[in-house]
Amino acid sequence: MSAQAHPPVVLYDTTLRDGSQSEDVLFSAEDKLRIAKRLDALGLDYIEGGWPGANPKDDDFFRQAKQLKLQKSRITAFGSTRRAGSKVEEDQVIKGLLGSGAQVITVFGKSWDLHVSRALGIPLAQNLELIFDTIRYLKRHVDEVFYDAEHFFDGYRRNPEYARQTLQAAYEGGADALVLCDTNGGTMVEDLRRMIGEVTDLGAPLGIHCHNDCELAVANSLAAVEAGVTHIQGTINGIGERCGNANLISIIPNLKFKMQRSLTLDDEDLTQLTAVSRFVNEMANRPTQKNQPYVGVSAFAHKGGIHVSAVLKDASTYEHISPDLVGNQQRVLVSEQAGRSNLIYKLEELGIEGVDAKDPRLTELLLDVKELEHQGYQFDGADASFQLRVWKALGELPNYFELLGFRVIDERRVRKDGQHPMGAEATVKMRVAGESVHLVAEGAGPVDALHKALSKALRRDYPMVTELKLEDFKVRILGNRKGTEATVRVLIEWYDGRCRWGTVGVSDHIIAASYDAMVEAVKYKLFKDKVKPV
Amino acid sequence: MSAQAHPPVVLYDTTLRDGSQSEDVLFSAEDKLRIAKRLDALGLDYIEGGWPGANPKDDDFFRQAKQLKLQKSRITAFGSTRRAGSKVEEDQVIKGLLGSGAQVITVFGKSWDLHVSRALGIPLAQNLELIFDTIRYLKRHVDEVFYDAEHFFDGYRRNPEYARQTLQAAYEGGADALVLCDTNGGTMVEDLRRMIGEVTDLGAPLGIHCHNDCELAVANSLAAVEAGVTHIQGTINGIGERCGNANLISIIPNLKFKMQRSLTLDDEDLTQLTAVSRFVNEMANRPTQKNQPYVGVSAFAHKGGIHVSAVLKDASTYEHISPDLVGNQQRVLVSEQAGRSNLIYKLEELGIEGVDAKDPRLTELLLDVKELEHQGYQFDGADASFQLRVWKALGELPNYFELLGFRVIDERRVRKDGQHPMGAEATVKMRVAGESVHLVAEGAGPVDALHKALSKALRRDYPMVTELKLEDFKVRILGNRKGTEATVRVLIEWYDGRCRWGTVGVSDHIIAASYDAMVEAVKYKLFKDKVKPV
Repeated sequence: MSAQAHPPVVLYDTTLRDGSQSEDVLFSAEDKLRIAKRLDALGLDYIEGGWPGANPKDDDFFRQAKQLKLQKSRITAFGSTRRAGSKVEEDQVIKGLLGSGAQVITVFGKSWDLHVSRALGIPLAQNLELIFDTIRYLKRHVDEVFYDAEHFFDGYRRNPEYARQTLQAAYEGGADALVLCDTNGGTMVEDLRRMIGEVTDLGAPLGIHCHNDCELAVANSLAAVEAGVTHIQGTINGIGERCGNANLISIIPNLKFKMQRSLTLDDEDLTQLTAVSRFVNEMANRPTQKNQPYVGVSAFAHKGGIHVSAVLKDASTYEHISPDLVGNQQRVLVSEQAGRSNLIYKLEELGIEGVDAKDPRLTELLLDVKELEHQGYQFDGADASFQLRVWKALGELPNYFELLGFRVIDERRVRKDGQHPMGAEATVKMRVAGESVHLVAEGAGPVDALHKALSKALRRDYPMVTELKLEDFKVRILGNRKGTEATVRVLIEWYDGRCRWGTVGVSDHIIAASYDAMVEAVKYKLFKDKVKPV
Repeated sequence: MSAQAHPPVVLYDTTLRDGSQSEDVLFSAEDKLRIAKRLDALGLDYIEGGWPGANPKDDDFFRQAKQLKLQKSRITAFGSTRRAGSKVEEDQVIKGLLGSGAQVITVFGKSWDLHVSRALGIPLAQNLELIFDTIRYLKRHVDEVFYDAEHFFDGYRRNPEYARQTLQAAYEGGADALVLCDTNGGTMVEDLRRMIGEVTDLGAPLGIHCHNDCELAVANSLAAVEAGVTHIQGTINGIGERCGNANLISIIPNLKFKMQRSLTLDDEDLTQLTAVSRFVNEMANRPTQKNQPYVGVSAFAHKGGIHVSAVLKDASTYEHISPDLVGNQQRVLVSEQAGRSNLIYKLEELGIEGVDAKDPRLTELLLDVKELEHQGYQFDGADASFQLRVWKALGELPNYFELLGFRVIDERRVRKDGQHPMGAEATVKMRVAGESVHLVAEGAGPVDALHKALSKALRRDYPMVTELKLEDFKVRILGNRKGTEATVRVLIEWYDGRCRWGTVGVSDHIIAASYDAMVEAVKYKLFKDKVKPV
């Protein structure tokens, strides 16, 4: 069925509001503004910014959001219906919502009779008034008002009549969409589809807001669209309370490429999905989920030898769409399951052509890599460490410098005033350009001190090393659980103003692992910049 | 509809085979055996162990699996149909499968005409023979044979006739189930349901094997069951190639509690789900996914003040099932979004009753926690650090000892023989029991050296500190991206033979952060063991 046959679907992002209720997530007002700009560049229709009046950080956000000059997205304020017993024009929450300056407001109300009686402690009819009043009042002041029917599906299951009445009250009040919320995330797909089918006769635009407690939020959102819903609420990467919200990053390509739905986003906008996903994870200080659908680093990564040879002949054998449609890329992994195809693919990626599949250096490299992986090295995410070994195996890696030794001293002294500053000092002894260099540097911590000492030692002969910045530093304790003596793997990500790359170090000593990863990063920098060894 | 109305569903686990093709995962044969035992204790019907004959590690597994004495699970061997042109009784793959000793064998074959022509390069009819031959032959030698129809849905979409014929060939060969595989993970739920509906007339038991490339593997598996499938293949935690396989940990409770399907597992078995999920992640050396449905640490964690007061009154307001049904637990988080309800809940958890909601110490504690979280502390996962602050706020934490200073020296010397061992030495100066103690210890790394020095310093007066073992050590770089000077958060998990707890340290110096977390672990140990300060 062509795109024209179905009505367009609008995308409503609640990363900044519902998403921020995720256990791990802590957004400052500045983080929220940066994310809002990025989501606008992507082209989402609505961005729910928070609950103004409930939270000073959110008031901050709405105040500054007025200066944002967004191109496509409309900022939305979120809050509750007025309190029972208060007049809507005097209600503090309502005043807070209007005070935010947002031209779109979403209010949530109770659709489950039990909650009305127990949580609110008011008669069922009075709840309908709250909903109607609030929305009608807000509609006089702003462009759009959405109604979030909290616990809709649980409420509809217990008392379908009442749940419908709450929707009707909101619609009569003038709501621009009635958003059915699976607040507890416990509804099965077929049940959800059926229940939505029973309220489409209200004639109102319907929305859907799912949670992922049964791992069905995406499926439920898509089923809702099939049932006639035209407004989907979700978050980037599905972050949110408990198991998270519906993941817009999966929903968007499913809607566009699989279900041929018309969105505000065009095909080119979708190529930003991978970048947007990573950006929000960085802002949320959240580890990336490697196997995340569509945009994960592993989403188009092929490991087994058989898969690799097949996918290199014909990508459709193991890829359901082309990765560049969502801004991702195909990857061939080097691992113990790798075969020669994997290795030759990687070599070609590095611009090394014409290596014979039977070349003994290839065999040695493959064995070397498998052995290192066995010890705990992980070349995925540390591609530079792998590449160095390739160049070394092919006899192309020069001897840039030689380490003679290093020492790092970390010291904490407790002063009389009770302060106990911590310092780190690294001394490094190297041979560079035939000369022995021995020097010292201070740092915020041991890795920083070592990095500074290494730069100091090399920069006279290799000034480009000062461009190297450490971007991310991950430490994992590996398999052999021997407490503080366990093997440590350090994965470091670097950036030199132009490129990003990762290196890995493995040792039972965290400083040794960090040093190894650091030195590989420097050598990689020198090799890729085609620097001649002094 | 009652459980009796639907046929029972069997669960087929491929964690050890398909799961091991996940980018991050590396199972040794011993790991696989341990996992098999654990999955048997859970009660899964089939455990696919690997591809014998293709992989020495898998041969190892099958050989040793014979001694496993499993109670419920049947070990399955996986492999391809015979090669075109070879006689089934002489085919190497088939010999390998039979040589494994497994009494259940699963073979995969091509159901997509394009793959038969292109990848295999044989006539379509010959492929049907391969399938028929292989299964018929295997059925003479083992109890059960399953047929995995690779790329079934993509193949059926292009040439439904041929896809059916491949299923028929397998069924006529005697296959005990025809497993429809969404190999590329790209099929939408309604399409999948429809296609399954069109092959149920074959009268064969059907199975389903989904991949999560569209975040629909669980939904697809459940829809398949609704369409008549009685055999589900998946992995623990959904690990697997690219975006992973269908996650059995989500599927099982959905089937039992939401869809009232009959499984071999009973309600009590399901209470093991959380533990099994964590066990497999440990074996796979994979970070736990905090927001994983049902079993994630955050699955029943409540953060926002409003949610917390509601859920404490009535858990059904924000919990779709009771967490203990799957062996998980409710958690109330302390964070900047916390209100007094959160804090009082936590205090009661600690056995501290009767603290007035208006107690000024509570206010101070709440502010202290919010400020620390702002700096980067994370008390979730570091409950001991939080508890220490509670006891301190209530004036109950004794002064066990006093740090006067410490120094850690990490040194690498490059020897003449090219070896470059790395050492670590820590000196610690403390006041314990009125005396000044100054001593030194060596370690495998700086944190190990510090731990040993600290133990050495305290063990005369507090001998129980030697029970403390470091179990896990996580380092995260926090928000402010200043390269090697970034703020570091260290989360350490401890075990003393009876209890496990976590502590957190935050600093721009990784050793300082580690030291702080270590000292808190020691103080927590002494306080919980009710040790009197000397």
